[in-house]
Amino acid sequence: MRISDVNQLEFDEFTSKFGNVIEHATLITAAVWSERPFRSLTHLHDEICKFIDTLPDTGKAGILRCHPDLAGKLSQAGTLTSESTKEQSGSGLLSLTEDERNYLQQCNAKYRNKFGFPFVICARENKKDAIMKGFKTRLDNSMVDELNTGIREVKKIGWYRLLDLVDKDSHL
Amino acid sequence: MRISDVNQLEFDEFTSKFGNVIEHATLITAAVWSERPFRSLTHLHDEICKFIDTLPDTGKAGILRCHPDLAGKLSQAGTLTSESTKEQSGSGLLSLTEDERNYLQQCNAKYRNKFGFPFVICARENKKDAIMKGFKTRLDNSMVDELNTGIREVKKIGWYRLLDLVDKDSHL
Repeated sequence: MRISDVNQLEFDEFTSKFGNVIEHATLITAAVWSERPFRSLTHLHDEICKFIDTLPDTGKAGILRCHPDLAGKLSQAGTLTSESTKEQSGSGLLSLTEDERNYLQQCNAKYRNKFGFPFVICARENKKDAIMKGFKTRLDNSMVDELNTGIREVKKIGWYRLLDLVDKDSHL
Repeated sequence: MRISDVNQLEFDEFTSKFGNVIEHATLITAAVWSERPFRSLTHLHDEICKFIDTLPDTGKAGILRCHPDLAGKLSQAGTLTSESTKEQSGSGLLSLTEDERNYLQQCNAKYRNKFGFPFVICARENKKDAIMKGFKTRLDNSMVDELNTGIREVKKIGWYRLLDLVDKDSHL
């Protein structure tokens, strides 16, 4: 699909195709529809990022909370979104040893307990070893740092999800 | 359920129960979770309204766009959310004559064409005659007026949806 095709979509088609670019946050997709026509894929991504930046901290924390734990109960139950399944699988998170899974689950619990939202990292840019190392470092951060870091990762995840849907080099 | 029970819910249970208080806008529910504990049902509703008020106009238009047309194609296909079905049915919108349905569909199309989002009205407070009259009046309004009016209606719809879920007189 080219960006010119994106601009031709009806609202329902647009939210159906892009509604999970930010995990479970269809409202963001519904909001950026106001900004059509998009000049490029980067423009669409920029509008998503700009909208996220307008949200108060509760909204940003809400976005993070709508993300699943890495190698958590949803992945074990097979109920991750298709996008998350692809991402977690590509980074090796869906084929962990029992020890690795136990370690990640302990990290998830500590992180959620400290920050009130799950650890979010762009799995497309990190293999499991980098993710485990990132967990250790980020657990020491402040709440503000982690809210900002998590949201930066959400935006990167969104970019890769857009790349899966639209030809990056197409322009209006 | 009492408000004290609401405050005991895990995040997933909370979004599963209240995720459609604002139609299809689970992100709002995910955001107000930050404001627990809620002192009363009014407090929970106030936090939802406050969060909506922080959104830029694109976000408010996005909320309106996630609402179905009254007596529109979703109701004819039987694919409305259960909340919308109850509301549209209670106001008599699911048992229209053919003429009434045609008239409403023409109004929907004119309204969408002018404002870029659907006509939203709290069906619990209006029977079909009042809705048809409201349509006629509101079609003449400005975009800013209708964005604000639509959002006021969304907040009322949310209040009635909360009343269906939680004992109104319970306090923390």
